Amino acid sequence: MRFSPLVEQLMDAFRVLPGVGPKTAQRMAMHVLEREREGGQRLSATLAEAIEAVGYCQRCRTLTEAELCALCQSPRRDETLLCVVESPADQLAIEEAGGFRGRYFVLHGHLSPIDGIGPEAIGLEQLESLVAQAHVHEIVLATNPTVEGEATAHYIATQLAAYGVTFSRLAYGVPMGGELEYVDGGTLSRAFNGRLPFASE
Amino acid sequence: MRFSPLVEQLMDAFRVLPGVGPKTAQRMAMHVLEREREGGQRLSATLAEAIEAVGYCQRCRTLTEAELCALCQSPRRDETLLCVVESPADQLAIEEAGGFRGRYFVLHGHLSPIDGIGPEAIGLEQLESLVAQAHVHEIVLATNPTVEGEATAHYIATQLAAYGVTFSRLAYGVPMGGELEYVDGGTLSRAFNGRLPFASE
Repeated sequence: MRFSPLVEQLMDAFRVLPGVGPKTAQRMAMHVLEREREGGQRLSATLAEAIEAVGYCQRCRTLTEAELCALCQSPRRDETLLCVVESPADQLAIEEAGGFRGRYFVLHGHLSPIDGIGPEAIGLEQLESLVAQAHVHEIVLATNPTVEGEATAHYIATQLAAYGVTFSRLAYGVPMGGELEYVDGGTLSRAFNGRLPFASE
Repeated sequence: MRFSPLVEQLMDAFRVLPGVGPKTAQRMAMHVLEREREGGQRLSATLAEAIEAVGYCQRCRTLTEAELCALCQSPRRDETLLCVVESPADQLAIEEAGGFRGRYFVLHGHLSPIDGIGPEAIGLEQLESLVAQAHVHEIVLATNPTVEGEATAHYIATQLAAYGVTFSRLAYGVPMGGELEYVDGGTLSRAFNGRLPFASE
């Protein structure tokens, strides 16, 4: 015995969500049908509406249902500073850390020739025209500290070299609050080579 | 900064699912919007359809979009044996374990006077008329081995005593493949008291 066709379809459909295997999908379908039909209807409607309406901000490419996202509309953000990130989630993480008052540009991925992801797929033409139009002085290349993220950062810096912009990259080093014993070797040697003068006062 | 209103609403909506907190909801919303719009549309449509169409089987109360579930329609199931379970998931677990060839009745919960869940909420009138009509010889009371499950089993056995049916309950004991060291005291003492003669051949 399995469940009825429609219940089975619902379980299958839940598996599109990240980290949801057959057992969790079954639990979700049962939970919604047994106890949360109202919430399930809300989820169904919101999901359809968001997929239909949410696109990319015309300026920074973050996810938004408006033409320009709230951050691009805000006059209080410094437009001379531009932070390039791989995803909206990275952008949120930087915003929540606080301290950065500039604007963003979201790539939605990184260069990956093997997967056919070239410069146009991550919006580099749009980034170039943004830099050409706006008064950007510094671009923080906050792509991930991975091989692909590094390569993407290098590519962007090379492509936009003609605009006389300063490029920077997030500092590498040991994470705050961590224990040295558990930091991986690559990070540790990088932090060692990049050691800073210590001010005792 | 937060995300745009619609993206935030989508994150909230995902929290209706069991075990989904703010971080997982964010990851689900990002995943669907960034990489799985097609799967998301399918989820939205299937969810709406299932919530609309899936109800209870008129005979056994399991979840189905048909009047009678596949199992109740099957002529190959022994209708003299009836297994009473708390949920469709319990029913599936018993089916997957194999061996039981009778029919089921799904309570969708257990008696819980504190929460206002009385006999009618778990379909006991329907169970009684089923027993009155069908040729049920034995009812396996497979409610959970919890205080509420036990109380519900006792209540059902008392209510249906007049029908001359045999009642049984799943055996209690140590789980197969487990190590005695890790079995809780209540289960162990129950298994000890219910010890069985050992056939050496």
